[in-house]
Amino acid sequence: MGIEPRRVAGEDDPLRRLAALLARLPGIGEKSALRLALAIVRSDAEYARGLAEAIGEVHSMMRKCRVCCDLSPREVCSICADPTRDARLVCVVAQPQDRMAIERAGVFRGRYHVLHGVLDPLAGIGPAELDVAALLERLRSHVEGPPIEEVIVATSPNVEGDATAIYLARLLGPLGVAVTRIASGVAVGGELEYADVTTLHRALQERRSL
Amino acid sequence: MGIEPRRVAGEDDPLRRLAALLARLPGIGEKSALRLALAIVRSDAEYARGLAEAIGEVHSMMRKCRVCCDLSPREVCSICADPTRDARLVCVVAQPQDRMAIERAGVFRGRYHVLHGVLDPLAGIGPAELDVAALLERLRSHVEGPPIEEVIVATSPNVEGDATAIYLARLLGPLGVAVTRIASGVAVGGELEYADVTTLHRALQERRSL
Repeated sequence: MGIEPRRVAGEDDPLRRLAALLARLPGIGEKSALRLALAIVRSDAEYARGLAEAIGEVHSMMRKCRVCCDLSPREVCSICADPTRDARLVCVVAQPQDRMAIERAGVFRGRYHVLHGVLDPLAGIGPAELDVAALLERLRSHVEGPPIEEVIVATSPNVEGDATAIYLARLLGPLGVAVTRIASGVAVGGELEYADVTTLHRALQERRSL
Repeated sequence: MGIEPRRVAGEDDPLRRLAALLARLPGIGEKSALRLALAIVRSDAEYARGLAEAIGEVHSMMRKCRVCCDLSPREVCSICADPTRDARLVCVVAQPQDRMAIERAGVFRGRYHVLHGVLDPLAGIGPAELDVAALLERLRSHVEGPPIEEVIVATSPNVEGDATAIYLARLLGPLGVAVTRIASGVAVGGELEYADVTTLHRALQERRSL
């Protein structure tokens, strides 16, 4: 973001100022921003105060975990600090939302690493913009206990996610760690009929023997 | 809204708390709320502070205009206070957004009245839930100068908007004021081919001689 809140002249000042700030959030257009600002005006004072406080709090309290770079209110996040999680297995994800999605599924007992993005040369995002250095450091220093044996790249199966996976495989392979990629294909429970061309192509390409 | 911000236990507390609050805003689902909360975490401190301040400000400063019930930081809004606007003509709208849309078009030089809703019996919204009493008071007292000659009902042309228009026509007609309704039909610049059935039906019904 990085843009100073503008002061807009005119009668509707507080409403327009809030709407202009909300419109800079991802996925919020001008009309949505106005609708949200009006909802905040109409909410009770308790809600508005809570929201303002929560914004200040989240900004001052959340930081990147020293080990996995996920966002956490602590220096080392609860997963990295949990001795029951398998430190030999690291699942690399693009965003904190992805880590949350995997945790919600409850199917992974290893640890994570959050890149905070994927390689996207067109958007000017190269390896230096991602939290790759911290992952390399983790692999080299074994600060977490047992050495990392496998890095599962769980970026989304699209052009940027795949490119990031290939980049990590080339970077980390020489360090003697197994680099794997999550499977992709027709979603479980999904209808083959409605799967898109690329998904079908991938599902056929990555077929396995029964 | 009216729900006290919940304190959620666990490590992600500030993030989840903000996301839970954002998810109570209209049109914001759980996933969007999380995405917005993460964007706020990543924004610079200046932006987050500005947003928190703007929320507090909008809530404490915005009130209903004493005359037209539109939201304004003043007791009487700038349009009601503007002596160049035609006080004999009042355009009734459901929401402040509607007033803004008409103002943006720059095609109306009268004044407004904001109902803050439309009749919707299924949602429990009757005349008492709308700012109708203030409109009646306006018509009776002539506080604005010359008496109001025409009330244009500019609610949306759907079931609730039409019902509100009919209700207002019955309520205000006996007071000797002309009650009119905005025209509806195929949008100007729109393709007849893509107009929906109801719009076409209305466009034919409300045809006028050339």
